[in-house]
Order: sequence, then structure tokens, then C-alpha cells
Amino acid sequence: MHDILVIKIGGGAGIDLAPLAPQLSALIARGHTPILVHGGSHETDTLANQVAHPPTRLLSPSGHESRRTDPRTLDLFTMACAGKVNTHVVAALRAANVDAVGLSGVDAGLWIAERKSAIRAIEGDRTVLIRDDLSGRVVYVDARILRLLIADGRVPVLCPPAITSDAVVVNVDADRAAAATAIAMNASHLLLLSNVPGVLADPADHSSLIASASAVGLETIRAAARGRMKNKVLAAEEAINAGVRRVTIGSANGADALARALAGVGTVLEQPGVPA
Amino acid sequence: MHDILVIKIGGGAGIDLAPLAPQLSALIARGHTPILVHGGSHETDTLANQVAHPPTRLLSPSGHESRRTDPRTLDLFTMACAGKVNTHVVAALRAANVDAVGLSGVDAGLWIAERKSAIRAIEGDRTVLIRDDLSGRVVYVDARILRLLIADGRVPVLCPPAITSDAVVVNVDADRAAAATAIAMNASHLLLLSNVPGVLADPADHSSLIASASAVGLETIRAAARGRMKNKVLAAEEAINAGVRRVTIGSANGADALARALAGVGTVLEQPGVPA
Repeated sequence: MHDILVIKIGGGAGIDLAPLAPQLSALIARGHTPILVHGGSHETDTLANQVAHPPTRLLSPSGHESRRTDPRTLDLFTMACAGKVNTHVVAALRAANVDAVGLSGVDAGLWIAERKSAIRAIEGDRTVLIRDDLSGRVVYVDARILRLLIADGRVPVLCPPAITSDAVVVNVDADRAAAATAIAMNASHLLLLSNVPGVLADPADHSSLIASASAVGLETIRAAARGRMKNKVLAAEEAINAGVRRVTIGSANGADALARALAGVGTVLEQPGVPA
Repeated sequence: MHDILVIKIGGGAGIDLAPLAPQLSALIARGHTPILVHGGSHETDTLANQVAHPPTRLLSPSGHESRRTDPRTLDLFTMACAGKVNTHVVAALRAANVDAVGLSGVDAGLWIAERKSAIRAIEGDRTVLIRDDLSGRVVYVDARILRLLIADGRVPVLCPPAITSDAVVVNVDADRAAAATAIAMNASHLLLLSNVPGVLADPADHSSLIASASAVGLETIRAAARGRMKNKVLAAEEAINAGVRRVTIGSANGADALARALAGVGTVLEQPGVPA
């Protein structure tokens, strides 16, 4: 019934969420049904430094970055992401006449996660095993609550944390949670937007954008992705493998960022057999 | 259709919200339809002190206390209340098999507030006028989103901040927001629970509880209320004046706190003509 569009906006430094509100309003006027997903890395880092509990990153042997999430960090993350950023985004959307509803993955059991039993992380020249991290991976999305809100004319604004089936609150990667949401909602398009224009062949050169995954092959995309971009490529692959027609990894910045990403400006991954 | 019960739990120090989850679950099993409202004063004060932006209270000439809410304090309040406390309450409820959904008053325009244009506050021996405070009063409650969630079997867990009609986020008193919610939802009973057993004739003596407003008269109740209790009495009066049948100001503590408050243990205000 609705042509669902899942839009993930990064929570990194240098991303201004306010200009996206009028763009989202225009998108809805053109008949799209968006679900917004955001992270809160930058605000969490700021708060964590202010309370003298500075952030720590974990680097997996395969090169994936994540946040070390001890109980205190989880609270700081929840405050920054589900408290501050979510409220700001919802208020900015309401100022643009978008009837937004903010939910974390904990609300209504929206994002049910499996907690990671152990994380392998590189520390100096050895690999350590971290067993007490409060992080996980979304394994189930309650599409029902989202359909209910959408049918009532509301725009869901979603963010981590998520919750396990035995009610433990855990941090999850917002890109992959957005992919899981796009899959559960049969979204036609997933946009993963941040402060870079897409996957770059040379991370230092913004003109080295790889525009189409099908043209170069997924191996090339995977090999080119560095740092946070690795998670976006993984999220994009998960979405495509589960039937989402199209994923665009693109830029969140600029007055026409959403329209450009929708038109496929960025790195596009598509279902095999779907014409570009 | 549903017999709505609005339960406000204080956000002060010494209130443990976790034991309330199984009690709420039992209440639902007995056929009640609860809406939970909470504050976040204590967590906000803790966070504000941690980031070296210590809390300041305003005292009105009539003796009502409120939080001085500059822009930074509003963010800290939002993080503590809508971020940390709300997520903890929702997770505790989910652990007790209650399908809770956390919303701040900003979400879905649930609590539309009028911003206070100026606050008269006592400073030493003079009265000052504060014009830039980000605080207000709930003037409209979107009962539709609450009915939608309740009809879907969800339990709304609500907290400040609220939002003005022109999308400015403002702090509001959670007791009075709970009263406004009870009015909009035609609740049969409003429970205002905190770490005191009700309105005390002598604030230092917990055995001096005034059990019934109709027995002593509202003037006596108003005169006895001190500090935060003044706001609860005001909220209770607003609810009664707008048609809520019964308000109980009682204790949130103890394994049977909800059942006791429902049975009228505490200070009870009732519609004139309603038998006790």
C-alpha cells in the first residue's frame, strides 16, 4: 500500500540534521512514505567526554569498528541518542509540519536484538575477547507498530538502543538496524546517508566515488570501504540479500541531499536483474 | 470503552521505578488500562552536576517551585528524562511482559504547551522577572495517539519535555501534564505517586497524613502542601475541576504501592457528590 523509504542519517560530527526536515516534508508531499533512522555517535562522544567517561572504540580483526559499551556508556549513549538527538530531530520535523514520532528500538519492542556473547577486538598486536559488552544485532523488527503509526499519518523517527527478548537494553549499529527495518517493512529503497558522498576508491579523494556496485562488483566495494563505511556496506548487502530493491550510500549534506540520494547519487547497490 | 487510569510516578531521589513493573502488570491483568507518566528531576540533577552545569530552582511568589530551564538545562533534562529514565522504565516494564511504548510530549505533538512568557521568581528579598526560560504548561493533549496505542495493546509511558504549537521544546511540570492527560483521556482515576504518603499536616511527620480532601476542605490541603507537593495539589485540583472522578496523592514505594493508591491510601480528592 505505501511505498516505504527508509532513510538512515548518520550521527557523526559534521552532519546537520535540521536542513533535512523541509526536504523530508517535500518528499512526503510527493507521495513517499519515509521512516527515518538516526544514530548519535557524535553527541555520545561529546557527553562521554563531558562526564569524564571518554569513548573507546573496538576494532574487530576484520576491520569493523564499534563502540565499547559498558553499562555507563550505554546510559550515556541512550541519553544522547534517544534523548537529545531524537527529540531535536522530531522537533525539527514538527517545525516543518511533519507529524513525527520518535521511538527507540526499546519502545514497543521495535528492535529485538541478540546480544553479542563475546567480541573479538584488536588491542595493540593481539586479539582480546570482550564478554561484558552491552551490544548486539537486530534480529527482529516489529513492523506492526510502524504500520500502525504510518497508517495514522505519523512519520517514525527511530534510533538505538534496541532490546533483547529477555529485556536487556543493548547498543546496535544504526546502519544495520535501518537495513533490518527496510527488510521488515518491504521498503523499496534504503538510503544510508552520512558526511561522505558514498564509497570512495580513495578515502582521501571525494571525487573517487564508486557510483555503482554492479559495475565494479561487491568485492571492490568491500575492499574500498574503510572505518564506519564498512558497516554501511555490510548493512547495504544485508538489505539487498533480503530483497530490498535498491540501497544508496550517499551524502546527508546539502539542500537537496534527499532528492539526490533518491535519484541514485552516491554508491548504488541493486537487486540483480533490476534495471538501473 | 477502556477504564483509563493515569499513574504519575515522581522522578525524585529515593523512588525506585523497577518494583512498579510487576505491579503494573498485575493491574493490567485485573482489567485496568494504565497510562504511565514520569519525571526525571533526580537524574537531571545528577547529570547537570556531572557536566558542571548545576541545577537552579525558581521559587514563585506563591511558593511554587520549578527548574530554571536555560537551553543547556533543557538538553540535559531531555537526555535524563526522555533518554535514560524513560528507556529504563520501558525496559523494566517489558521485562514484566508489559508492552510499553515510551513517548515524550514532543513525540506526535502529544503534549502541546504554551511557553511561559515570563516567570516571577523570588531571589533573596526581591522578585525578579525571567523572560528566557524554556518552560511552559500543557494546554492540549493529543488523545488520538494514546487511544491508537492503547487499542493496539500497548502501554504508553509518557514524560516531559513538551512542545509548543510553533515547535519549541519546553520543560513542563510532569504532575500537571499527567492531570492534563487524565482529563483528555477521560480517566476515572489519577494517581500522583512520590516518596511521601500524601499531603501531610506536618511535613516532618509521615503519620500526619490528610486522608481526604472533602473531610478537611481544599483550603486546608493547599495550606499544608509544601515544595513539590504544591504542584501535586494544583494538578489534582485541575483534574477534579475538569471532571476526573478521583485523584489520589500517595506513595510510590512498597510492593503494593499501586494497589494501595488505587484503594485510596493517600490524600484523596473527589468530584463533589461522588461517594467515597
